[in-house]
Amino acid sequence: MDPRIREHAEIVADHSTDIQAGDNVVIRAPPEAADLVTALHELIGDYGANPIALDTNSRFSRAYLRAREDFETPEHEQALIEATDVYIAIRADANVTETSDVSPETNAAYSQAKQSILDERLSKRWCGTQYPAPANAQLAEMSTEAYENFVWDAVIKDWDAVREHQSQMVDILDPADEVRIVSGETTDITMSIAGNPTLNDYGEKNLPGGEVFTAPVPDSVDGEVLFDKPLYHQGREVTGVSLTFEDGRVVDHAAEKNEALLTEVLETDEGARFLGELGIGMNRDIDRFTYNMLFDEKMGDTVHMAVGRAYGDTVGPGNEQNQSAVHVDMIVDMSEDSYIEVDGEIVQRDGTFRFEEGFDA
Amino acid sequence: MDPRIREHAEIVADHSTDIQAGDNVVIRAPPEAADLVTALHELIGDYGANPIALDTNSRFSRAYLRAREDFETPEHEQALIEATDVYIAIRADANVTETSDVSPETNAAYSQAKQSILDERLSKRWCGTQYPAPANAQLAEMSTEAYENFVWDAVIKDWDAVREHQSQMVDILDPADEVRIVSGETTDITMSIAGNPTLNDYGEKNLPGGEVFTAPVPDSVDGEVLFDKPLYHQGREVTGVSLTFEDGRVVDHAAEKNEALLTEVLETDEGARFLGELGIGMNRDIDRFTYNMLFDEKMGDTVHMAVGRAYGDTVGPGNEQNQSAVHVDMIVDMSEDSYIEVDGEIVQRDGTFRFEEGFDA
Repeated sequence: MDPRIREHAEIVADHSTDIQAGDNVVIRAPPEAADLVTALHELIGDYGANPIALDTNSRFSRAYLRAREDFETPEHEQALIEATDVYIAIRADANVTETSDVSPETNAAYSQAKQSILDERLSKRWCGTQYPAPANAQLAEMSTEAYENFVWDAVIKDWDAVREHQSQMVDILDPADEVRIVSGETTDITMSIAGNPTLNDYGEKNLPGGEVFTAPVPDSVDGEVLFDKPLYHQGREVTGVSLTFEDGRVVDHAAEKNEALLTEVLETDEGARFLGELGIGMNRDIDRFTYNMLFDEKMGDTVHMAVGRAYGDTVGPGNEQNQSAVHVDMIVDMSEDSYIEVDGEIVQRDGTFRFEEGFDA
Repeated sequence: MDPRIREHAEIVADHSTDIQAGDNVVIRAPPEAADLVTALHELIGDYGANPIALDTNSRFSRAYLRAREDFETPEHEQALIEATDVYIAIRADANVTETSDVSPETNAAYSQAKQSILDERLSKRWCGTQYPAPANAQLAEMSTEAYENFVWDAVIKDWDAVREHQSQMVDILDPADEVRIVSGETTDITMSIAGNPTLNDYGEKNLPGGEVFTAPVPDSVDGEVLFDKPLYHQGREVTGVSLTFEDGRVVDHAAEKNEALLTEVLETDEGARFLGELGIGMNRDIDRFTYNMLFDEKMGDTVHMAVGRAYGDTVGPGNEQNQSAVHVDMIVDMSEDSYIEVDGEIVQRDGTFRFEEGFDA
């Protein structure tokens, strides 16, 4: 077994989920991730915890969902999750388009039926991570070996040092009122984050971590953004997305490719036309776009904004939490001809933060 | 997908477990059985039931068990099974000796900790079956394709016709008092089955099915048996097993190979020296020994006897149920120079039953 797999497992078991003797642990993974699941079983055995492994082979979901419309909440799965202390979800694919012939309506109905299970899961100690399977390398347009290096470089880090480093940006944003993001001639957007907490993601619930994020005040967003990186939604790619905001609402939108899908997202509900998240990517081992939001949103020298639902813990007391059925992240490259301004002061220029060497105010 | 996989799935879902709308279903299988699990998901979707798939990759068990001694009952797995209506266990292996370096003591302690989960599972509608994986073909000393033919010939049958055919043997044994089994010069054994029900196995809980079986009255067994087929226990083979019974108890035993393992089985506890089962194999599509008791004990023209625990439903009211931590089946070839006598009348000679053509009383 590649020794990095055992290092990956140790980070999940120790740093991310802190597995203890007697913990009931669920590991949810497809067969492609068997090496990582095996390494986790070694640790769970060593620690005296109790494992159960769910097989998330996407052929099973596709077979089950292909001809159905109505669903009920599976009570046995609900009972399992309620009795669980730690939930580990490992992504890996044999074919990333395996469920491409399941209708969006069926997927939505199934997600709805399982919402209470998701809520239960999010109340546990949990971690979502990625195993570098060949199909995921293919989606990233990389060789399997290069993709393995990419994933494990991004995952196997000194996460305490990351927390310390990122906390400097949290300290800037947490008390701030206004954020302005400028990139080239195409992006100039301002928003209020007054009263909303900024969270530090250092590889606990998401592995890799590597971002700080908060929620904009919904009606405060004004300006224009051109997203440099493609939006990948429901297996389809939307490129060259541009959005214009007035009083928080998207009043104009365009895309170079698949604009209809972008329109569909924005028309999901009223909240889908408002921002639910502003995030700053700070993991510089993620140095390329791989069509996988678990990585893409943490890419160094980027910011991302999500239309739709805001996370509850990024909304301060008394502030409005944007509500929507969707949460769709989109990414702006900040590495050149760009800056982030907080309450009138530039805090990042061309990807370099003001607390880093080489910062040019 | 081989069309026989969908036929196999239909027998499991319809005949063996009778899956209905709203049923909560657990499928427990290793990745080698993914095609059969996929076919079952299609049916579960069509029927409006709710699936969850457990991954029983034996690398996980080996990793978890390799360094442990003490176990507790995993409460999340217990909660899952309690909330389940149908439990489907599919065997298939990547390596049948994967857990060969886990100690027998560890395996026993783990089984003990999971006993309440097993009991719960046996109270549900359940089915155990086999997928023809290459490693299982290897254990059977067959090509994968020949083994696929073997498994699906044994599994894909008109089980209602099997039930009817086998019920003729149930009708003989159920009211009977004494059974005598004679084969060549080496086997001549008598036992009472008075008051003990004979059960008809036609592919419900075991798939393939194909036997009728009951329990001997423990202290009634007398005589000698030479078991023609190897006993395969804890990954080791014992050949040429012979046992001598007096008043039900094994008073003498021998084996050509691995006699020590046979001794170990018999010394497990006092009940391990008494018979817990007499079974008549009636599935003539199982025409060879494959080191897999799910198949071997149903082989046509054989009988099997198990030392150790008797199944509760094969013991009549007021009769003694033999108790033991083990239940180890062993097989006698009845195809030549052999007969079964019931209350003094020959009911099978050289493998042919008295209700079949060609029977020579």
